[in-house]
Amino acid sequence: MKKFLGVQDIGNLHDAVAEALEVKRNRFAYKHLGQDKTLLMIFFNNSLRTRLSTQKAAMNLGMNVMVLDVNQGAWKLETERGVVMDGDKSEHLLEAIPVMGSFCDLIGVRSFARYESKEDDYSEKILQQFIRYSGKPVFSMESATVHPLQAFADLITIEEHKRTQRPKVVLTWAPHPKALPQAVPNSFAQWMNATDYDFVITHPHGYELASEFAGNAPVEYNQDKALEGADFVYAKNWAAYSGDNYGKILCQDRSWTIDDRKMSLTNDGYFMHCLPVRRNMIVTDSVIESPNSLVIPEAANREISAEVVIKRFLEEMS
Amino acid sequence: MKKFLGVQDIGNLHDAVAEALEVKRNRFAYKHLGQDKTLLMIFFNNSLRTRLSTQKAAMNLGMNVMVLDVNQGAWKLETERGVVMDGDKSEHLLEAIPVMGSFCDLIGVRSFARYESKEDDYSEKILQQFIRYSGKPVFSMESATVHPLQAFADLITIEEHKRTQRPKVVLTWAPHPKALPQAVPNSFAQWMNATDYDFVITHPHGYELASEFAGNAPVEYNQDKALEGADFVYAKNWAAYSGDNYGKILCQDRSWTIDDRKMSLTNDGYFMHCLPVRRNMIVTDSVIESPNSLVIPEAANREISAEVVIKRFLEEMS
Amino acid sequence: MKKFLGVQDIGNLHDAVAEALEVKRNRFAYKHLGQDKTLLMIFFNNSLRTRLSTQKAAMNLGMNVMVLDVNQGAWKLETERGVVMDGDKSEHLLEAIPVMGSFCDLIGVRSFARYESKEDDYSEKILQQFIRYSGKPVFSMESATVHPLQAFADLITIEEHKRTQRPKVVLTWAPHPKALPQAVPNSFAQWMNATDYDFVITHPHGYELASEFAGNAPVEYNQDKALEGADFVYAKNWAAYSGDNYGKILCQDRSWTIDDRKMSLTNDGYFMHCLPVRRNMIVTDSVIESPNSLVIPEAANREISAEVVIKRFLEEMS
Repeated sequence: MKKFLGVQDIGNLHDAVAEALEVKRNRFAYKHLGQDKTLLMIFFNNSLRTRLSTQKAAMNLGMNVMVLDVNQGAWKLETERGVVMDGDKSEHLLEAIPVMGSFCDLIGVRSFARYESKEDDYSEKILQQFIRYSGKPVFSMESATVHPLQAFADLITIEEHKRTQRPKVVLTWAPHPKALPQAVPNSFAQWMNATDYDFVITHPHGYELASEFAGNAPVEYNQDKALEGADFVYAKNWAAYSGDNYGKILCQDRSWTIDDRKMSLTNDGYFMHCLPVRRNMIVTDSVIESPNSLVIPEAANREISAEVVIKRFLEEMS
Repeated sequence: MKKFLGVQDIGNLHDAVAEALEVKRNRFAYKHLGQDKTLLMIFFNNSLRTRLSTQKAAMNLGMNVMVLDVNQGAWKLETERGVVMDGDKSEHLLEAIPVMGSFCDLIGVRSFARYESKEDDYSEKILQQFIRYSGKPVFSMESATVHPLQAFADLITIEEHKRTQRPKVVLTWAPHPKALPQAVPNSFAQWMNATDYDFVITHPHGYELASEFAGNAPVEYNQDKALEGADFVYAKNWAAYSGDNYGKILCQDRSWTIDDRKMSLTNDGYFMHCLPVRRNMIVTDSVIESPNSLVIPEAANREISAEVVIKRFLEEMS
Repeated sequence: MKKFLGVQDIGNLHDAVAEALEVKRNRFAYKHLGQDKTLLMIFFNNSLRTRLSTQKAAMNLGMNVMVLDVNQGAWKLETERGVVMDGDKSEHLLEAIPVMGSFCDLIGVRSFARYESKEDDYSEKILQQFIRYSGKPVFSMESATVHPLQAFADLITIEEHKRTQRPKVVLTWAPHPKALPQAVPNSFAQWMNATDYDFVITHPHGYELASEFAGNAPVEYNQDKALEGADFVYAKNWAAYSGDNYGKILCQDRSWTIDDRKMSLTNDGYFMHCLPVRRNMIVTDSVIESPNSLVIPEAANREISAEVVIKRFLEEMS
């Protein structure tokens, strides 16, 4: 594995989940793999779960960990080639990346969509430069278009809680005051499409996800109808992807908020969200605090998904 | 031990001090206890000594350590339940706390009094939520009303330096340009009251501490009189506690500053302060630099008090 | 070794380089040296390479590492004695330094020139206080006047790439939009003067370096002439040192930028720079991306120079 961005990088999903459950039972059993190996975690954006869970996973595996918050205590980075650097940016990514690669064995990168250029975002411009220039294996800790450690943790959580062989899983858009990236719904859709679940997407018109991620998943524009009989309700806000609306907020309709009535339409369904979540925008206090809420177990599984992915990188090094 | 907030959580004080002196002689003797255990240190406020000493103590014990500065690189946290989260706060404490608890075995929290609500502060609203919702043992790294690792380090320092069985220890208020919390004087008073020392508090009228901490310690409003024959002078500023004056500065009288004349009233007394200290407000250059100043040994003992407390948590886990 | 600031602290240079190459071949061979030892890295200023490479070096040696960004999450520090501290600074260096020293075995300090006072900068006022008051060995991670870990890494890099016994090495000033410290050129000149290389300095009039660092190295004011036959071109901007011009920008002449024509004057010379570098100010894209650019191997050797220096400190402790 040279990189971890999507479901295609993890191989057989049944094997991956089985490995995750094994790691979860004994998370310190592979400490020899990380000996004298260093993970560098690079944050261009804020993080709580990813910061802690990935660090914990690497320590479980016996690695040394260095955390770099690019915007705190380092230098502002130029990302465009050919520029005369006479402004506020002291260093170019083309130097910074191979330098960072020099001091570690594995790199995790968080770099959100900037919504300045759809092409830049959807080419994963920042992350791809790390893959190309760092000389080290690279994984996404949520980048412009994907959040694969989250989607893998979501899959593990569903496997742990499903009550039927082929559960109905609904990804539903929900309202939010700010324009958010599509990374989480993209990855969730991509991973769900790779399972044999009954997977449905629901959102207002105009919020269609990129086809490379949404695939052939049915889209139901009536949220109530989509939720009928759902075993898992995965709520998430995202800004528009399509055409000139890229990065725009088209709807703030609070009737899409997941509340008790919405959940009553489901098959005693579980509520899921990647967190951080805005209460009473995305979901009501009542639903997120209910026994059917999986938001905490789902977050806890971030340690496990990260450990499996890092373990696989380490196995290829040794 | 599920929590460490006050003197009541440490058990017999003689045993605790004896254990501290043993740990101080051989601080790496208990490294096996922390193997595969992770401390999460969470800072809502600035820290120098606590940050370094607690991290050092945990590493002495063989633990992994993760440090989270909530206001740098993480998400702004909502603390009120029932709010529609459409503002600048992306995550609720009710999610963030159990998530943080998922990735560690022990949690230290720094969360100062905000002086917005006496009730919130004196109910230790933030810290108590960590105790209630994290699922892990929690200790105060200075919270709204207490700073027990400091008070324990102070006790160790007094025990190391006392020249009589029952020294006279004076806690004295001193002037400061900003409103400071009562956490340090509260804990110092609480711990001193649990000893058999001759303990006296002196401050201007209106600066009475909460009775749950001040207990039956005599209050002498004449500083000079209080200092007579003191073996240890513990200086500290705090804002008013009583009634409507909560959080207010009532006095900036520089005659309360500890200077050479004040120290000459003592029994060749030692000078103590928890640091950080404002020179020539709380204490003169001359006194803090004198051979009788214990501010550095006292700070160094923060590593020891933290190590004893963390060691006890670890012993209960294994 | 009580301190590491300059070439005089490293002893015989041939031995130091030989030790570096040995460490580079097996960077984990000395892990026993750092057991139960803690490095404290203190940053008053930004850092990327130094932050990562020094941390990596210490971990290679088995040390625990604590990183403190003084301006993030700690207290603002007063540096002047005798001040009534009623402003925004909560703590004095005279307390902070021995406290920091209490919690570690070795201290690295980054503290740039402030250009407020030539005397303060050139007396290394901040760093010298750490040496004097911390009670622990101290090394510069770039201080007001020197950057010895960089110069040592540069020396290692030249030794790895030189094609003649006595290469011609040219330190050349280059333009930059901001006033930069002289630490890097000072240390580079000092270390080159300690070798038997043919070392030449070139810069516009008025940019003469302090004689304590420039020594007897010839200064050639015609850059083209200086570059003739160079084996290594070390580019760097710095602000003026001399007299009343201290800290000022006297020249922004872009004809000093290192481009392909400049490099064509050399003996197929290598390009070097300490990074971060402003592209198309200091050096063109074409030169820095050419096969003769050593900026990345040079940065990678920062891990090695740091490991040798820390290793020597540790050897004296055990």
